[in-house]
Amino acid sequence: MMAEKYYPMWKTLGIDIEKHNQLLNILTQYYTSVYLSQKNRPKKMDYFDFVVSEIHGLRIQELEESRRAGKKVVGAFCLYAPEELAYAADATMVGLCGGADFSIPDADAVLPRTLCPLIKSFYGFRLNRTCPYFQSSDLVVGETTCDGKKKVYELLNELIPTYVLEIPHKPDTKQGKDFWFKELEAFKAELEKLTGNKITADKLKASIELVNNKRKALKRLSDLRAKSPTPISGLDALLIMQISFNDDVKRFTAKVNELCDELEERVSKGEGVAIKDAPKLMISGCPMAIPNWKLHSIAENLGASVLVEESCVGTRYFTDLVEPKGESVDDLLWAIVEKYSKIPCACFTPNDARIERVTELAKQFNVEGVIYYTLQNCHDYNVEAIKVDRTVKVLGLPMLKIETDYAMGDSEQIKTRVEAFLEIIREKKQ
Amino acid sequence: MMAEKYYPMWKTLGIDIEKHNQLLNILTQYYTSVYLSQKNRPKKMDYFDFVVSEIHGLRIQELEESRRAGKKVVGAFCLYAPEELAYAADATMVGLCGGADFSIPDADAVLPRTLCPLIKSFYGFRLNRTCPYFQSSDLVVGETTCDGKKKVYELLNELIPTYVLEIPHKPDTKQGKDFWFKELEAFKAELEKLTGNKITADKLKASIELVNNKRKALKRLSDLRAKSPTPISGLDALLIMQISFNDDVKRFTAKVNELCDELEERVSKGEGVAIKDAPKLMISGCPMAIPNWKLHSIAENLGASVLVEESCVGTRYFTDLVEPKGESVDDLLWAIVEKYSKIPCACFTPNDARIERVTELAKQFNVEGVIYYTLQNCHDYNVEAIKVDRTVKVLGLPMLKIETDYAMGDSEQIKTRVEAFLEIIREKKQ
Repeated sequence: MMAEKYYPMWKTLGIDIEKHNQLLNILTQYYTSVYLSQKNRPKKMDYFDFVVSEIHGLRIQELEESRRAGKKVVGAFCLYAPEELAYAADATMVGLCGGADFSIPDADAVLPRTLCPLIKSFYGFRLNRTCPYFQSSDLVVGETTCDGKKKVYELLNELIPTYVLEIPHKPDTKQGKDFWFKELEAFKAELEKLTGNKITADKLKASIELVNNKRKALKRLSDLRAKSPTPISGLDALLIMQISFNDDVKRFTAKVNELCDELEERVSKGEGVAIKDAPKLMISGCPMAIPNWKLHSIAENLGASVLVEESCVGTRYFTDLVEPKGESVDDLLWAIVEKYSKIPCACFTPNDARIERVTELAKQFNVEGVIYYTLQNCHDYNVEAIKVDRTVKVLGLPMLKIETDYAMGDSEQIKTRVEAFLEIIREKKQ
Repeated sequence: MMAEKYYPMWKTLGIDIEKHNQLLNILTQYYTSVYLSQKNRPKKMDYFDFVVSEIHGLRIQELEESRRAGKKVVGAFCLYAPEELAYAADATMVGLCGGADFSIPDADAVLPRTLCPLIKSFYGFRLNRTCPYFQSSDLVVGETTCDGKKKVYELLNELIPTYVLEIPHKPDTKQGKDFWFKELEAFKAELEKLTGNKITADKLKASIELVNNKRKALKRLSDLRAKSPTPISGLDALLIMQISFNDDVKRFTAKVNELCDELEERVSKGEGVAIKDAPKLMISGCPMAIPNWKLHSIAENLGASVLVEESCVGTRYFTDLVEPKGESVDDLLWAIVEKYSKIPCACFTPNDARIERVTELAKQFNVEGVIYYTLQNCHDYNVEAIKVDRTVKVLGLPMLKIETDYAMGDSEQIKTRVEAFLEIIREKKQ
């Protein structure tokens, strides 16, 4: 990306140009070393490489053009932020920055150090003004999924209007779902106020279809990764999932389907990316926001093949569709409640659906080991590791728990642990 | 306490006698050095000293006698556990152990180390079977106040039946209060199932009055502490508040009122406990379960006078009463929702009521400084310190933030910091 041509836009958005240039340099170098060094990548990854290269440029330009045409941009952090409602209000929903160590020193000047890196990262990005998605957002939608995010949204609201949607934590009670429905109604009203557009049944039906198509494309991609040999690296699949939160939905969906066409060809030819007998892994746990490629990169560089992410940046996003049982706005909102209450986030108690999901995925992908990934100080995922570990043991598989942040300081240590873990898998296979 | 005479009871309850003796020895020594070394204590503290000495003995014997007579015991951790409902079902609610470092090594073998000490402590107490309140409980009632507790309740439920009550986190929405009401209804049904007793309007009215009287007595005690000179130490007042979760409600209420009679006499005579010009402090933050006397002990030994705890083991418990607007079960449940939604726990977002409360208390008690107390890895209180700090600054007062666990390892460091803080207050006064 030629950064200079975007300077006027970034200045208008209040971006700290100098600091932002530092960020872009780091990202470009990191992306080049992690992604472009991979061998035998599908040709259709070109599009996604391009999107990454323009993720703070062309995509922001598109958003700004849409804003000039009267559309609103809603920034979000979480799968529970109901994007269907945003699109039905003719707004665009985008994922906000929160995956980089770069902004954490700025956050550390304000926030307790013991928060998880994702929270510190997003707050730091808004503070240091190097995330154009924040700068382009007319509203941020937060949620009450975890203590850290919930409380930091209060502080974020001092910097940018932040609406907090409450998510019930017992997923299966009638009163919890009734409450969720009411919370969706309240958020719908907020979006209508923000955009001046009424969310009608027709608009909501259309946006549900739009997002369902995206989910279907990602599910198609995911299923193709289960083929042997797997036709795409875990790193590339992760990247596509990460981009799904920022790219234009229709275009993105088409591009994922084009890639899947190519992958199907690869599969029919028996062409793959992993080395022969590469240990097949599932990674299960916390979300990995762009540019968090640390664990995939370590594992695949050591010869493993990451086949599936049981994660919000993974299967939790696309496994289920929104499936309305009627045509009214209420029916459609209820369908959203039903789909979203199936997202097995560790904020739920108990979160039995995740245990079932891990079991299903281990079988579908025929994995030989599970790496449990938790961000430091994330109590929900850290504690839930205990139950996932038991489940994985029942399946007769080894599990490695990695608790880490976004810094590279522990990379060598993680590498050593993953190496030993892969050795265990290889020995079991002999 | 003559421990031996309780051995048969403890054995029946499954207590690990040897380990429990170690705990009792530590507690007795600690209590003697912290409490019995205080000078000029009110005479009526005798009762509370006795309660502490028999807290694992006589009180458990009472609970066991009530169980033999068909009553149930419900263990709890949190102000949001609606004790009025438990008493209305003719059950007894008791606070569970969770304030001691003693049980944490046992928890550390299972739980992530980065959880807060309170959570590790209670889970460890159930694991190592040294808390007779756990062993006497027929049901534990948990709540979704924070991520760590919420997830560990799932594991606790494997050791003892644990019912989780969901608490909405946005305190002021209509849908949140409707949801809370439904959650109370569900818990009411659970208690009726457990006890075989129907919770009628009359029973609920009586239990509301019972608990209101306890809250009134504690409020009376709290208000007396605002007198100059203050007639009781912060340490003693903290102890009474801690005991309030375990003692028989009626007896406890009477004993607190007797103590208050004595304190009123002291006030009328101008008799106090603190040294002249002792810096007057508020402590605001996380709950301090028995035997967590660390911060009060350090501060008062350094010559400060702790006048008020803005805490769940403090003002949050007794400031508001349950005030029904009608006579039906629904009216009474709604009154509980209204009172409980005024408890300004940091799990709420935003928690403006706490900010207002801190301001009011600072004025009522004429404090000269605030120590903000947060348990390690408690995200809610750790982040909310930022807003409380601003509030305290607006009041023109200094604030010291202490983040600690239950171990004594950092006592010297805390002592040094509190000493410097008191020096700032003393210099301001000159």
